Amino acid sequence: MIDLDKHKAMANAIRVLAIDAVEAAKSGHPGMPMGTADIATVLFSSVIKVDPSLPDWPDRDRFVLSAGHGSMLLYSVLHLLGYEDFSTEELKRFRQLGARTAGHPEYGHGAGIETTTGPLGQGISTAVGMALAERMMNARYGDDLVDHRTYVIASDGDLMEGISHEAISLAGHLRLNRLIVLYDDNQISIDGPLDLSESGDALKRFEAAGWNASRIDGHNASDILAALEAAKTSDKPTLIACRTTIGYGSPNKAGTSASHGSPLGAAEAAAARDALDWHAEPFEIPADVRDAWRIAGLRSGHARKAWEKKYQSLHPDERAEFDRQIRGDLPPSFSAAMEKLRGEIGRERPTLATRKASENVLAAVNAEIPETVGGSADLTGSNNTKTKDLEVLTADNYGGRYIHWGVREQGMAAAMNGMALHGGLIPYGGTFLVFTDYCRPAIRLAALMGVRVVYVMTHDSIGLGEDGPTHQPVEHLAALRAMPNLVVLRPADALETAEAWEIALERKEGPTLLALTRQNCPAVRGEESHGNRSKRGAYEVAASGEPAVVSLFATGSEVGLAVKAKGLLDMEGIPTRVVSVPSFELFERQSADYRGEVIGDASIKVGIEAAVRMGWDRLIGTDGIFVGMTGFGASAPYEELYEHFGITPEAVVALVKARMADA
Amino acid sequence: MIDLDKHKAMANAIRVLAIDAVEAAKSGHPGMPMGTADIATVLFSSVIKVDPSLPDWPDRDRFVLSAGHGSMLLYSVLHLLGYEDFSTEELKRFRQLGARTAGHPEYGHGAGIETTTGPLGQGISTAVGMALAERMMNARYGDDLVDHRTYVIASDGDLMEGISHEAISLAGHLRLNRLIVLYDDNQISIDGPLDLSESGDALKRFEAAGWNASRIDGHNASDILAALEAAKTSDKPTLIACRTTIGYGSPNKAGTSASHGSPLGAAEAAAARDALDWHAEPFEIPADVRDAWRIAGLRSGHARKAWEKKYQSLHPDERAEFDRQIRGDLPPSFSAAMEKLRGEIGRERPTLATRKASENVLAAVNAEIPETVGGSADLTGSNNTKTKDLEVLTADNYGGRYIHWGVREQGMAAAMNGMALHGGLIPYGGTFLVFTDYCRPAIRLAALMGVRVVYVMTHDSIGLGEDGPTHQPVEHLAALRAMPNLVVLRPADALETAEAWEIALERKEGPTLLALTRQNCPAVRGEESHGNRSKRGAYEVAASGEPAVVSLFATGSEVGLAVKAKGLLDMEGIPTRVVSVPSFELFERQSADYRGEVIGDASIKVGIEAAVRMGWDRLIGTDGIFVGMTGFGASAPYEELYEHFGITPEAVVALVKARMADA
Repeated sequence: MIDLDKHKAMANAIRVLAIDAVEAAKSGHPGMPMGTADIATVLFSSVIKVDPSLPDWPDRDRFVLSAGHGSMLLYSVLHLLGYEDFSTEELKRFRQLGARTAGHPEYGHGAGIETTTGPLGQGISTAVGMALAERMMNARYGDDLVDHRTYVIASDGDLMEGISHEAISLAGHLRLNRLIVLYDDNQISIDGPLDLSESGDALKRFEAAGWNASRIDGHNASDILAALEAAKTSDKPTLIACRTTIGYGSPNKAGTSASHGSPLGAAEAAAARDALDWHAEPFEIPADVRDAWRIAGLRSGHARKAWEKKYQSLHPDERAEFDRQIRGDLPPSFSAAMEKLRGEIGRERPTLATRKASENVLAAVNAEIPETVGGSADLTGSNNTKTKDLEVLTADNYGGRYIHWGVREQGMAAAMNGMALHGGLIPYGGTFLVFTDYCRPAIRLAALMGVRVVYVMTHDSIGLGEDGPTHQPVEHLAALRAMPNLVVLRPADALETAEAWEIALERKEGPTLLALTRQNCPAVRGEESHGNRSKRGAYEVAASGEPAVVSLFATGSEVGLAVKAKGLLDMEGIPTRVVSVPSFELFERQSADYRGEVIGDASIKVGIEAAVRMGWDRLIGTDGIFVGMTGFGASAPYEELYEHFGITPEAVVALVKARMADA
Repeated sequence: MIDLDKHKAMANAIRVLAIDAVEAAKSGHPGMPMGTADIATVLFSSVIKVDPSLPDWPDRDRFVLSAGHGSMLLYSVLHLLGYEDFSTEELKRFRQLGARTAGHPEYGHGAGIETTTGPLGQGISTAVGMALAERMMNARYGDDLVDHRTYVIASDGDLMEGISHEAISLAGHLRLNRLIVLYDDNQISIDGPLDLSESGDALKRFEAAGWNASRIDGHNASDILAALEAAKTSDKPTLIACRTTIGYGSPNKAGTSASHGSPLGAAEAAAARDALDWHAEPFEIPADVRDAWRIAGLRSGHARKAWEKKYQSLHPDERAEFDRQIRGDLPPSFSAAMEKLRGEIGRERPTLATRKASENVLAAVNAEIPETVGGSADLTGSNNTKTKDLEVLTADNYGGRYIHWGVREQGMAAAMNGMALHGGLIPYGGTFLVFTDYCRPAIRLAALMGVRVVYVMTHDSIGLGEDGPTHQPVEHLAALRAMPNLVVLRPADALETAEAWEIALERKEGPTLLALTRQNCPAVRGEESHGNRSKRGAYEVAASGEPAVVSLFATGSEVGLAVKAKGLLDMEGIPTRVVSVPSFELFERQSADYRGEVIGDASIKVGIEAAVRMGWDRLIGTDGIFVGMTGFGASAPYEELYEHFGITPEAVVALVKARMADA
């Protein structure tokens, strides 16, 4: 049973800290933490399994504040529970440069922040991936080692975002009964009362997606506790709609959007303190309240220690494997296996679509790394993401390693973030490159958080052919290359595809995107190669006999085209070299010397890519010749499209000769 | 009552044309048209109000094939109804270069294609905008002139996409009872049976969003007709889930994903013809079937003529205004009004956030152009999109001109496409620039279709401040500039903001995006200006006294910074000029002479933009100095962020002097 006086004081501590921090910052969102303080208090003092003394304990429950603008809720709770990273000083530095207490929770800023949230809808969708990862790890290691839940506080805005549909239908379909969403049902949006823009039935919506759903008074601690306890035994994911008053405690702003996104102001802050019967100085917590929270913070110590015992009693090999997967290290044998594979491909020199080459590489990768998890947004046969040995994951078999995500690019990308954040798994997922537009908000979060997710994006140009311009990326490579901390790789052939996978998997510090062809690509390199040349981003793949007059730079399927153009130019007596550029980002990180050497000093530089020019001037200069796209594609067999848009060896030769005639 | 034999033959005509065209193209999606042929036959032969002899008749019903991969369904129907653009020859050229019959329906390729569909989820969401536009135009012109419906055929994939949630909740909230969605409930996805990835209750889901929903046998013509007739009298939008068999008629592939995305193959195509009791040659339609379809095509001629009469009886002024709005021409007074406004701003030289300047411009624009429709994805007060005179649109007042879209960036962007396609309205809508990531799939379609939609994207850099990196765009300007046929404008001050709006509204051939600041910007130009200088994309805003040694190029809030840097450099005796670059795309379209003149020949070129460098080498060259961002932003007051990331006049001066010392 809940001691209501104590509960009230504990909840008010959250409210007042939120008020104080927002006032100090002169910026922030007090309304949400004030409204959800009762929910958070019950959750963190009586339900959730976390240990502030060991915040990264693998079997902890996960908490996601999907309504990230209410970040002071999370910071206050972590502070009160005793998380070292969230001292009073940090609370006072809310929203200041270098503080752990950023405007929205930023993953990596402090222990206890399980994911970055801010773009509405992403948190709840990321949580689906966490809840799924828990079941998958449970299937691998059993209840002794993996037995936790994922709790979410989500807002009206989270549920209005389209991605939430993909997330909740996935969770329902996969029966993720350890996912529990507390919906801050406050009936207020930024523009005003929610009914300005929303009149749906949230409970019915979640039920339709296969969830349990109920509505409670979000300020009634007993009801909150009862609902959470019921949720823990549910056979489905659970939505608890908690009717709350935004800005609860603010005499004049509670229940209105005025409390949402601005400080209450000194007068109203004082009035709220009075109304809450709170008489401590700003940022001060009365000893009894602080004690109550610290005791709450100690609650799961016993469970954590019990877990440690089970963990210690594992067979050392199993423990080592568990640790390795949780750390995210690759198996020690991985490098040698990839070197062997590269050697084989180099000798064989196959002509393959790079999506098919990717499937071949994955067969080796999935055999070597048991923690990879594949999937596709309903394009399995096109993305070549399913290798034969991968069992399909279902609600009845979380041991599967392949996920049919459905036509849910957004949900897939966000859930992959959650799986990577959870730890123990390396997710990769596919769709057509053009549909990275749907994945982009989640890709951005992966890049911002620095988590290892691999995107297998096939049909990467007009080479897609007949499906036409809605399915043909032209601006996507540029748009993705623009994103910080995302590495985009567009391999030229089967060998570069193997190199790309090696780079992607070794890269723990962020996401990697592979842009792969639908159509066949000849081998541009062979067994003379040693080492992973793609790691440097660009390299000379074909030298000129004499000092080069022409340098051809190309990526992916256009490298083979460049090699052909070189053949034609050589025949005309024009010394030409070819540079393959699998990754702009990796090349940008090389030394000035290496860059200068690869770019070279040929007087005519040509960039070739079946995409827009944006970004290419960096390599070929403003006077470089660019052979690519200037607008959207078209529907036709792909060879005709290359011809139609002038992306051919002959077109390259003609442009080079015209430039030479001008000179 | 439906003549079932005739119906069957008419439906089979669609099926066989789809088979024939896909076989001829050796590529395409036969299963969907074969499965939905009965639905389409009933809809187009007994229900929909269209006139093939006047396909652009403003009061026609709209039809959206959201499942655009089933394009042969649409082409077959348009052909059979007698739309001139879709001759037998065109059907034979399915998916060939230059054909009207592209792989997915492409707006502009032929009359009868109301929107481009292909990316799943977009069609149904665009249709919401069409249905809303109908009600809005009805509120303005009455039942005599505007009284039509929007029909959609949507697939499982459409409904799995997250954007569909935003669309259906909007439609329910706005009670768009003239929106009727026929859901091709075939229980098959590309990866296999739908239950691989989906187990939700679609009817319950739509009901939760405020729709009527029912399920029927999608091969029973009478049931289809009855459901459609009921839908026409509904007070809510309607979902009709039509249980169909994908590939209906194919003896060995019906009901499986094998019929989805590949030709049936010669043998199975022949078997299907037999099964359908169809004995005509490929692309041939027996005379009786052709006659039945032609009669269907004549069905609404009477209604169309009746409408013409009402239209002709309008007061000539009202008719002229209706015509003008449908044509999309601006009021003749617009240019003079904008010139006057620009003059006023030039004299006043206000220091304003460009989002606030935009609001001021909009006050004039909305007074001048009655067909503008404003809105925001729940950031009205931040985007400054609502001018005082705009009434809020609700389900009870379609006469309103301001839409509270809710937290539905995707749905807003797609619905704006639908409004623009419908005709008669000019939609603009706002969110934070960073959330263009959510809008991107719909923005791309606006660009591909070439429709006039204006995006008011505020908080366009780290200038957003404390909300931190999830809310601070750094790569978005580059990513948007990469998109063909989108014009991105980042105005420097109030005057350029007025110029940007003028450009956006005059631009009928595509979408325009305004990137606007949260923070104040000083005026960089004044009353000496005449004409809209932003139209050329870039221009010298401050000249150097002597021949320039340094050219500073900047956009938006960084132009003021560049002007300050010029002041400092001038004091150091370093002749410096400043170029404002409101639009890369518009500048790219200028003559080589103008471009050369603006870029100039100063030995040191500096680009300044609080964003990534991608795209800037085009202006400043690979050896240009770039002052901007190299990674994600941070949470802090914005002045501190500019300082922290080294985007200050002093940093510009230091880098220029270091370069001069190197030289």
